[in-house]
Amino acid sequence: MVKVDLSGAKPFFTAAGPDYAAAAAAYKTFAEKTGLGADFTGWEGMPQRIKDTELDAIVAAAEKIRSRSQALVAIGIGGSYLGAKGAIELLKPNPGPGDPKVFFMGNTLSVDAINDTIAALGDMDFDVNVISKSGTTLEPAVSFRIFRELLIKKYGDKADDHIFATTDARRGVLKGLADKNGWTSFVVPDDVGGRFSVLSAVGLLPMAVAGIDVRRVIDAAIAEFKALDVGGPENPAWQYAAARQHLYGKGYTVEILGCYEPSFRFMAEWWKQLYGESEGKDHKGIFPASVEFTADLHSMGQYIQQGPRMLMESIVRFTESRTSFPFPVEEEDADGLNYLAGRDLSEICRVAADAVREAHVSGGVPNIVIEIPKRDEEGFAAMVCFFELACSISGYMSQVNPFDQPGVEAYKKNMFRMLGKPGAK
Amino acid sequence: MVKVDLSGAKPFFTAAGPDYAAAAAAYKTFAEKTGLGADFTGWEGMPQRIKDTELDAIVAAAEKIRSRSQALVAIGIGGSYLGAKGAIELLKPNPGPGDPKVFFMGNTLSVDAINDTIAALGDMDFDVNVISKSGTTLEPAVSFRIFRELLIKKYGDKADDHIFATTDARRGVLKGLADKNGWTSFVVPDDVGGRFSVLSAVGLLPMAVAGIDVRRVIDAAIAEFKALDVGGPENPAWQYAAARQHLYGKGYTVEILGCYEPSFRFMAEWWKQLYGESEGKDHKGIFPASVEFTADLHSMGQYIQQGPRMLMESIVRFTESRTSFPFPVEEEDADGLNYLAGRDLSEICRVAADAVREAHVSGGVPNIVIEIPKRDEEGFAAMVCFFELACSISGYMSQVNPFDQPGVEAYKKNMFRMLGKPGAK
Repeated sequence: MVKVDLSGAKPFFTAAGPDYAAAAAAYKTFAEKTGLGADFTGWEGMPQRIKDTELDAIVAAAEKIRSRSQALVAIGIGGSYLGAKGAIELLKPNPGPGDPKVFFMGNTLSVDAINDTIAALGDMDFDVNVISKSGTTLEPAVSFRIFRELLIKKYGDKADDHIFATTDARRGVLKGLADKNGWTSFVVPDDVGGRFSVLSAVGLLPMAVAGIDVRRVIDAAIAEFKALDVGGPENPAWQYAAARQHLYGKGYTVEILGCYEPSFRFMAEWWKQLYGESEGKDHKGIFPASVEFTADLHSMGQYIQQGPRMLMESIVRFTESRTSFPFPVEEEDADGLNYLAGRDLSEICRVAADAVREAHVSGGVPNIVIEIPKRDEEGFAAMVCFFELACSISGYMSQVNPFDQPGVEAYKKNMFRMLGKPGAK
Repeated sequence: MVKVDLSGAKPFFTAAGPDYAAAAAAYKTFAEKTGLGADFTGWEGMPQRIKDTELDAIVAAAEKIRSRSQALVAIGIGGSYLGAKGAIELLKPNPGPGDPKVFFMGNTLSVDAINDTIAALGDMDFDVNVISKSGTTLEPAVSFRIFRELLIKKYGDKADDHIFATTDARRGVLKGLADKNGWTSFVVPDDVGGRFSVLSAVGLLPMAVAGIDVRRVIDAAIAEFKALDVGGPENPAWQYAAARQHLYGKGYTVEILGCYEPSFRFMAEWWKQLYGESEGKDHKGIFPASVEFTADLHSMGQYIQQGPRMLMESIVRFTESRTSFPFPVEEEDADGLNYLAGRDLSEICRVAADAVREAHVSGGVPNIVIEIPKRDEEGFAAMVCFFELACSISGYMSQVNPFDQPGVEAYKKNMFRMLGKPGAK
């Protein structure tokens, strides 16, 4: 289970500390489904539902793709790709010999990026997983038309067998196309918004294709949501939500999420959507940013240490490394590093993390540590459940609807009008 | 040459507009080398110096590596890797068949990341480029000991021939090692800080190994610095510096740098160091963040459109795409996209960018567009020169030393003490 360590934030709290009564009220609103956007809180029960319904089919589809293709083109934008991409980079940074490469498309209008992907596919065998609730979002629709045409060119009549659609259960353009052409289909649930959908077929199919054990992910998620279903300030999701809202109230307007694993980079992008889109509305919301440590101590470190005191820092720490490497001794010691010899690199990294925390807290940056046992399927699932629940509590604490995204329509409306889409104005 | 379009920022200016008199004073301070940190402004004359001295040797070393190795391990942190990594991802997102893979190490203490790189190297032939002014920064020193040992295991007596050191011209641990072992060496200039060093051997050698034409880069940089050497509000570097400082003064405390090319992602990391480390001091400085469009319109888009009105947005636009792709017609038009058929994707993307700008400006986000002719060697060089010069002007306008980074020492000091380094306290 996830643990939160607030000791580096406490020096910045007022005497009363974070408002756990407000966290309790927010949690009640969430659990009793009485708040804004309550129709979109189905993600908490989703792992169990997926296990009871679609999981076997998802795994079977992934096995089919793995056995015949060297690549999957996963087409989706926002919540329809960030979670899967984050998970794959985190858990499979070096694909194994049998693992297809997963290309994420449908998230760009760059002609060069699309052509680069087509070039990288070369003559590989590939499948397409198109992920869109409606089928009308421009970026994935544009990519899907292009990659579907490539499939038809390559496989002719058999192309439909290479298309997997993750879409609405009943309605929409993509659902209509899937039914008509007999594509294997999976469901984007009605009661789950895109940024909360990584543990549905949306995230699970690309993850399974990449070689992640999604059964382990789902079992761990069921257990973690159960473990998090406790009322009280001992709940780590309450702690994180209450602490960051308390700090926000004191003028810490930017939160940087950091990790000492480079493979975490895209999970931070997933987190940015989760928190930015849930809380950034009504001219409110903590600005979510990310750093990779120790790399960015030599880029953003100066700003963190001595810039404006408006940053809070949340660090994801994996308690246990996957591998080990005892630092070698060198007879000459020309580089003067023999004082580290024999110690494992993972220990050196842990000491560095402690040193950074001390430096940043002394410099005036509140620090929250989120401890995850291991960088594996269970750790990934626990982290997702934790961040999703904490986000809901935090959003309700700041009096917004954490589950809508009305501001995303503005550019789309302009774009469709300027592109001359029939009926757009 | 780079062009700046401030039309999306103007609605947010006061009647007097940006303070070009202050920009003029800052530029004068920079040009006459009378300001804080003037000893570190050698980067403006560096392209010509490199051309006159090291460029041939850099190209020759790169050719040697390219002809015999499938990989280069470039070891460096902060300014010793961000520029080269940004350039390679921007200009060579799909390596060609003869291009060695460049692994960036020395920027992490993650044991898993180091082991992953060793595994990915497998039995490839490889060279090492270690990049460190002193040789004592912990992360690159740790990686260098490890990868040097791998070279010795693999090549025995010939290992020294596979090591290229980019380091101080005269002093330091690494310089001593290089001289003693006869490694090919290049210079980290004394009058250039890490974040301004991409157009020296620091950035050029890895870029050249990856297949970037660094002679074109250097010729373009010489021309761009010359073009930017004009006093007056028509100087794009003045415009950018003055506009962002004006907006900062009005409460826009976060700047998001965005681009519609996914391959730009790491250039934004380079930019974050350049601006964050130059300006983030004395409890001042705009917080630098980045977004990838259109992808992040579906993650950070909500926050940008409706969150707190503290964001300004700067967009790097490449006027011309490298490739083209006319959007295909589909007889059935089941997805309803035939209204786009026949138009090139690059045009669709341009319209989307205009639509986004209109939406964000209407929503209360000042917008600055930085236009670069093309995503090629010349475009890269022009962008680097522009951002470096504008950063110096902007830093002097906000009364800080744009060329130091005193805050980076805090964590290092803690770390060496906690690791028990001899003499550390």
